[in-house]
Amino acid sequence: MQADLICVGNELLTGLVENSNAGFLARRLCSVGIPVSEISVVADDEKVIRAALGKALKACDLVILTGGLGPTDDDITREAVAAILGLPLVLNRKWLEKMEQFFCKRGLKMPKNNRKQALVIEGSTILENKRGTAPGSMIEHEGSLIVLLPGPPHELQMMFDEQVLPYLVGHNRGNLTTVKTLKCIGLGESMLEEKIKSAGEWDLPQISYVARGFEVDLQIKGCGDPASASAALADAEKRLRSALGTYIFGSDDQTLAGTVAEILIAGKLTLGLAESCSGGLLSDIITDIPGSSKFYRGGVVVYNPDAKVEVLGLSRSLLNHEGEVSDAVARAMAEGARSLFRADLGVGITGIAGPDSDLSGSPVGLVYVAVSSPDLCDSMELNFGGGRRAVKERSAQIALDMIRKIVLTGN
Amino acid sequence: MQADLICVGNELLTGLVENSNAGFLARRLCSVGIPVSEISVVADDEKVIRAALGKALKACDLVILTGGLGPTDDDITREAVAAILGLPLVLNRKWLEKMEQFFCKRGLKMPKNNRKQALVIEGSTILENKRGTAPGSMIEHEGSLIVLLPGPPHELQMMFDEQVLPYLVGHNRGNLTTVKTLKCIGLGESMLEEKIKSAGEWDLPQISYVARGFEVDLQIKGCGDPASASAALADAEKRLRSALGTYIFGSDDQTLAGTVAEILIAGKLTLGLAESCSGGLLSDIITDIPGSSKFYRGGVVVYNPDAKVEVLGLSRSLLNHEGEVSDAVARAMAEGARSLFRADLGVGITGIAGPDSDLSGSPVGLVYVAVSSPDLCDSMELNFGGGRRAVKERSAQIALDMIRKIVLTGN
Repeated sequence: MQADLICVGNELLTGLVENSNAGFLARRLCSVGIPVSEISVVADDEKVIRAALGKALKACDLVILTGGLGPTDDDITREAVAAILGLPLVLNRKWLEKMEQFFCKRGLKMPKNNRKQALVIEGSTILENKRGTAPGSMIEHEGSLIVLLPGPPHELQMMFDEQVLPYLVGHNRGNLTTVKTLKCIGLGESMLEEKIKSAGEWDLPQISYVARGFEVDLQIKGCGDPASASAALADAEKRLRSALGTYIFGSDDQTLAGTVAEILIAGKLTLGLAESCSGGLLSDIITDIPGSSKFYRGGVVVYNPDAKVEVLGLSRSLLNHEGEVSDAVARAMAEGARSLFRADLGVGITGIAGPDSDLSGSPVGLVYVAVSSPDLCDSMELNFGGGRRAVKERSAQIALDMIRKIVLTGN
Repeated sequence: MQADLICVGNELLTGLVENSNAGFLARRLCSVGIPVSEISVVADDEKVIRAALGKALKACDLVILTGGLGPTDDDITREAVAAILGLPLVLNRKWLEKMEQFFCKRGLKMPKNNRKQALVIEGSTILENKRGTAPGSMIEHEGSLIVLLPGPPHELQMMFDEQVLPYLVGHNRGNLTTVKTLKCIGLGESMLEEKIKSAGEWDLPQISYVARGFEVDLQIKGCGDPASASAALADAEKRLRSALGTYIFGSDDQTLAGTVAEILIAGKLTLGLAESCSGGLLSDIITDIPGSSKFYRGGVVVYNPDAKVEVLGLSRSLLNHEGEVSDAVARAMAEGARSLFRADLGVGITGIAGPDSDLSGSPVGLVYVAVSSPDLCDSMELNFGGGRRAVKERSAQIALDMIRKIVLTGN
C-alpha cells in the first residue's frame, strides 16, 4: 500500500500557516508500514484539487486530503472529490442536528453557511469531529481509499488517531508491528553505527538515523509478512538495546523529558532548576509534561549577577573569582536550586548563548551544566556551535540526560 | 510570475524531518509579490524529481528545488535537473578548492564523495554557501528560472535571502513594495474587520487575516505596477494604523516579544517574572531575543505553594484564603517578582494549564495575569480553551501585551 497526501489551502501556499499536518500524517502512516510517496500542497481551487486527486489515484491506493472542509465559500474539497468520483453530495441530517446543538449549547444560532458542512459524498463514511463542526469522511473507490480530514491540526490529529488509523490497521492496510523508533542520546550518528556494527555479526534490519540536536532517532523496519516482520523487529530491538545500553532513553513517541519525568516520579524524587543561558527553556520543556507538578518544584532564571547572588544565594566573590560562566558557578547554581526549592535534585546551567560574548570574553557556545543530588554533584563543560536557540536547546537536552544518568546509575 | 516549489527528500516523506523550507520560501516569495502555485514533496528518486520538474516548468516561470545536494549517493537533485535540461555536469575547480580548504581548516582530509558537490550544471550560476559544502545554483531555461537550494534550513535561508531574493528583485521578477504585514493583538479577526470597515469609505486593498493565538497577522497587498502598488500600500497602512491604533504592535518580521524588548530598552526599564502555569515559557520567549539581558533581570517558576511562599515571599494565608489561582495571587506574584529582582516591572501568571484541575476544582484554562509597575498593578482574568501548550502560549502572549500597554499608555 502506498499513500499520497494532498494538503489544500491558500494559507499554506503563502506560508502564513505552517503545514504541520503533512509531517504528522507521514509519521503516523510510516509507523504502520504505509509509505508516503508524494505530498502536494495546492490552492483552494476545484480544478487544481481535481487534477491532484486524479494524479494521486493513478499512483496510490490511499489518498488523504486535508483542509477545505470549512463552512465558507472557499472550502471546496468535498465538492472537488465528489465531482471527480461522479457522486452527488447528500445532506446528512444527523450531522446537521449535531451542529445545531453545538451552536445552541453556546447560546448561538447556527450561521446559514455551516449547513454546507452537513453535505457528504454519497456512500462515504462520516468521521466524527469532537473538536469542531467539520466532519471528516472516508470513501472506497475502485480499490483505493480516499480520506478527507479537516485542516486544523488538533481536529485532524484526534480524528486520524481515533478513527482512521484503527480502520487502516483493522482492514489490513497497515501493520502496527513493522516499524520501531529507538531514541538515543549521548552518541552521534556515526558513533552509534560503529557501536552497532561492532556488536557482532547479525543480519541488520534497515536502520535510518535522524539527529535532533544531541538526540538521534534510530528507526528500524521489519520486512515481509506481519508475523515475521514483527519477530525480526523484536529481535533487532533486543540486540540494539544490548549493544547501546543506556544510550537508548526511550522509543517511539517517548521524549527525553517524558522519560526523565517517569524516572523521577517512580523514584519519588523532586527537582529544582537554576537556569542562566538556557533562559527558562528547560523549565518550559518540563512543564509541558502533564503531571510535572508531581516532581517539579520550581526554577529560577538568574539572568544577571545580582539575581545569582540575591535570589540564588551565590557568593559575589565566587562570581568574581571564577566568572559567571564557569564550572564552579554551575555547581553552585545546582546546589542553590536544590536548597532554594528543597528538592532532591538541582540543576545549574550557565553559558554564553550569543550572539555576543560577555565582558569576560568567553567564547559564544561555552556552557557549563551541573546536576546536584544529596550524594554528589556532577558537571560538564560543553562547546556548542549554532545560534542562540541551538545553544539553549542543547543545554536543556544535556541537563535532562545528566539527570537521567544520575538517577539511573547514581553517577 | 508564478513559482512552484519542489522539496526533495525521503526524510520529509517519513515525517522524520519537518519541512520548514516550504513555509519559509512561500513567505519570502509572497513578500515580493511572487505567488506560489504548488508545493510538492518528493522522494530522492531521479525519475520522480524529473517528472515533478517537467510538470512545474510547464505551469510556472520560477521553480525552486530544495534538498538532494549533499555528497552521498542518494543526493541526486543536480543530476535530475541536468538530465531534464539536457545539459552536462561540469567540475567547478574553484568550489572544489573551497571545499578542500573547508576540511583542511578543520584538520581533516576531504572525503572523496564530497567531490561530487563541485559538479555543477553547465551554464548555471553558483550560489555561495557560507554554512556548508553544498553550493546552490540558478539557471535560466527557456524563459524560466530554476533555483537549486541545499536542504538544511540555516544554509537555505541565508543563501536565499542574500543571493536569490536580490536577484529576483533586481531582475524585476519580484517587487519588494507590494506586500506588508501588520501585526495585531487584542482584537479577533472579525472585530478587526468591523473596525476597519467602520473607519470610513475608502478603497480597501486585499486583506488576509491569519490568527496565531491572540495575535492576528493582517496582510495587505498592493496591485498594479510597482510605483502605484507601493503608493496604495503606504496609503492603506496609514489608514489602517489610524483605524486600529495600538492594536497594531508591529509589522512584517517583528514579534510581540521583540516589540516589548524595544520599548523596555528605549524606556530604560527592567523586568522580573513570576510564572506558575506558564512554566517558564514567557522567560524562554524573552531570552530568545538577543540582548534581552539589557532589560530582563530574571524570573522564578513557582510550581507549588511552598515555592510561592519561600522563594517569592507570598503569605501562606493569602494562598489559603484566595486560592493559588486567583487575581490576588497573580498580583502578589507580580509585586513579588518586581521586588525579588529589583526590577521596574513585575509579571505574575497563575492558572490551570490542565489536563486536570487542581484540588480547588477551578476550571482548566482559568488564568490570571498581572503586571506591576511602581505606579500601578493591572490584572486580567482569562478563560482559555485548547490544551496545555495553548494555555501556556496564550498566557505568555497576554502578559507581553499587558507590559506593552502599561509602558505605552501608563495603564
